Amino acid sequence: MSQPVPMVEVWRGELLESFHTGHAVVCDESGQIVESWGDPDQLIYPRSSCKMIQALPLLESGAADRAGLKPEQLALACASHSGNAIHTDRVQSWLSDLGLTDDALRCGTQWPQPQEVEHAMVRAGQTPCQYHNNCSGKHTGFLTLAKDMKAGPEYIDPDHPVQRAVKDAFERATGEDTPGFGIDGCSAPNFQTTVLGLARAMARFAAAPEGSAEARLREAMMLHPDLVAGEGRSCTRLMRAMRRQAAIKTGAEAVFVAILPEQKRGIALKITDGTTRASECAIAALLVRLGVLDPQHEAAQAYLNAPLLNRRNINAGVIRPATEWLNA
Amino acid sequence: MSQPVPMVEVWRGELLESFHTGHAVVCDESGQIVESWGDPDQLIYPRSSCKMIQALPLLESGAADRAGLKPEQLALACASHSGNAIHTDRVQSWLSDLGLTDDALRCGTQWPQPQEVEHAMVRAGQTPCQYHNNCSGKHTGFLTLAKDMKAGPEYIDPDHPVQRAVKDAFERATGEDTPGFGIDGCSAPNFQTTVLGLARAMARFAAAPEGSAEARLREAMMLHPDLVAGEGRSCTRLMRAMRRQAAIKTGAEAVFVAILPEQKRGIALKITDGTTRASECAIAALLVRLGVLDPQHEAAQAYLNAPLLNRRNINAGVIRPATEWLNA
Repeated sequence: MSQPVPMVEVWRGELLESFHTGHAVVCDESGQIVESWGDPDQLIYPRSSCKMIQALPLLESGAADRAGLKPEQLALACASHSGNAIHTDRVQSWLSDLGLTDDALRCGTQWPQPQEVEHAMVRAGQTPCQYHNNCSGKHTGFLTLAKDMKAGPEYIDPDHPVQRAVKDAFERATGEDTPGFGIDGCSAPNFQTTVLGLARAMARFAAAPEGSAEARLREAMMLHPDLVAGEGRSCTRLMRAMRRQAAIKTGAEAVFVAILPEQKRGIALKITDGTTRASECAIAALLVRLGVLDPQHEAAQAYLNAPLLNRRNINAGVIRPATEWLNA
Repeated sequence: MSQPVPMVEVWRGELLESFHTGHAVVCDESGQIVESWGDPDQLIYPRSSCKMIQALPLLESGAADRAGLKPEQLALACASHSGNAIHTDRVQSWLSDLGLTDDALRCGTQWPQPQEVEHAMVRAGQTPCQYHNNCSGKHTGFLTLAKDMKAGPEYIDPDHPVQRAVKDAFERATGEDTPGFGIDGCSAPNFQTTVLGLARAMARFAAAPEGSAEARLREAMMLHPDLVAGEGRSCTRLMRAMRRQAAIKTGAEAVFVAILPEQKRGIALKITDGTTRASECAIAALLVRLGVLDPQHEAAQAYLNAPLLNRRNINAGVIRPATEWLNA
């Protein structure tokens, strides 16, 4: 068992003000480690980074096709969306197609992420619904599967057929028996795996043949980077910059994964302190290392050399990969 | 030079999901270390945790008394306030007393921290002013001193007489020559010190005799915990719980300090990854260890056993001090 390694530094002026350590694994299609930093066997919760795994039963069961789901909906099932109209309109319409309303969701309410959307709602006297929750696409996917299974409404219970199917898919994808689960921010079970297990799952998504459930989810994410997150956010910006060379996904508490179809490789990383600014920087650095992200691209620079802008937009410092991390 | 030690753990279900390491020092009135964890000589930016040091020249120069400042204004000079009316009304009135307006401030604008205040402003068609900035009390203190000195309006320039006086006070308080400064979120220079230097400064504030500049600032903070931060925030809640046994102050990037007048001791801590949830938990643990905070008090429990509540208010885990940290 190895210690986590310094991955990201926060500089203010001439002083290293804060830093972030983490574990990361690059895995190939055979499930073997290509490169790793820290402890590949560290147990983690993948949180929202595993939404494409949680969506597998929806496709593998045939429920997605019986419900006529399109790539847009598959992308939303894998999304932590911002709650813009492009997300919430589609989720509401999907719920309606299922003959359901917001009440069927079990993710809880959440204000949209962009301040201008939140403020527009406030001015209109509105309060957030469950479909505004960043996980509402995943949950509508769960509801689609539950309806197809003719299962009950509490689709987030660990013993519900939907979650049993998710657990089975999760263990097949990671190649590990999960030792347990935690309750996620959206109330769904989130299964434990190692960093290696998560990277292995991503490599399987990367190597899966065209037409498979994994490939359809991977392609849907790369086709709709704006649905997977939203304007200005790391998944959207970096996927656009990579032009279908990778599908990537963030998760709470600083998990980040990448699916690299051309190389048939997967990446998983976890920043040990759970800080998103660090997982965004670290995944950008690994995507550059693997040759799928141009380090000079504006979106790459936004995470590899993120300015610390203060309240008067004065540049007071920078967030960047730890010098010794990938140069060693 | 010692490595930072694990101080705070984030548990979700049965798994340690994230953790935070840090440096901390307890110092006595002679400037000696009573106890320390990690590296006392680690250089840090104290950020807003040193606002009471930055306010020293205001009192030591006599400017505060010539301007007729009351303890409320001294508390605001040391505050990172929430932007509630109790804060902004007083800052506006203070600016008016100086014959100045919001335009004289150089801290930049910031939305008030409480969502209900922000939303009320949005509904009223308002946008934030500089006096809403959490640092506006400190800046109005700088303006009070600048006016008394008959110095120019750019009071945040490192070469301005106000900041020269702040640097001098900072070096006297910490007992160290500062190796440099960074630009803070509010655009003021923030001087580097060691964790020990910051703890030493807090011990000096703790031991300073009644009527001294240090004692007046310390007393103002303890008299007005609601002005130093705001309802629901750690400085306010914990100071109320300790009933004038300590003045405490948070700083960005997870710095926290405490002034313990009865014991004539000071505390300073820095969480290395800059996460506030961890500095709040760690300072609560140290205040309990030093006997000034009842661990069973509701406010103490809010930081020693902070529930991870998800979007449906389900308790999914806990943030708590690392088991081995203070029990070793």
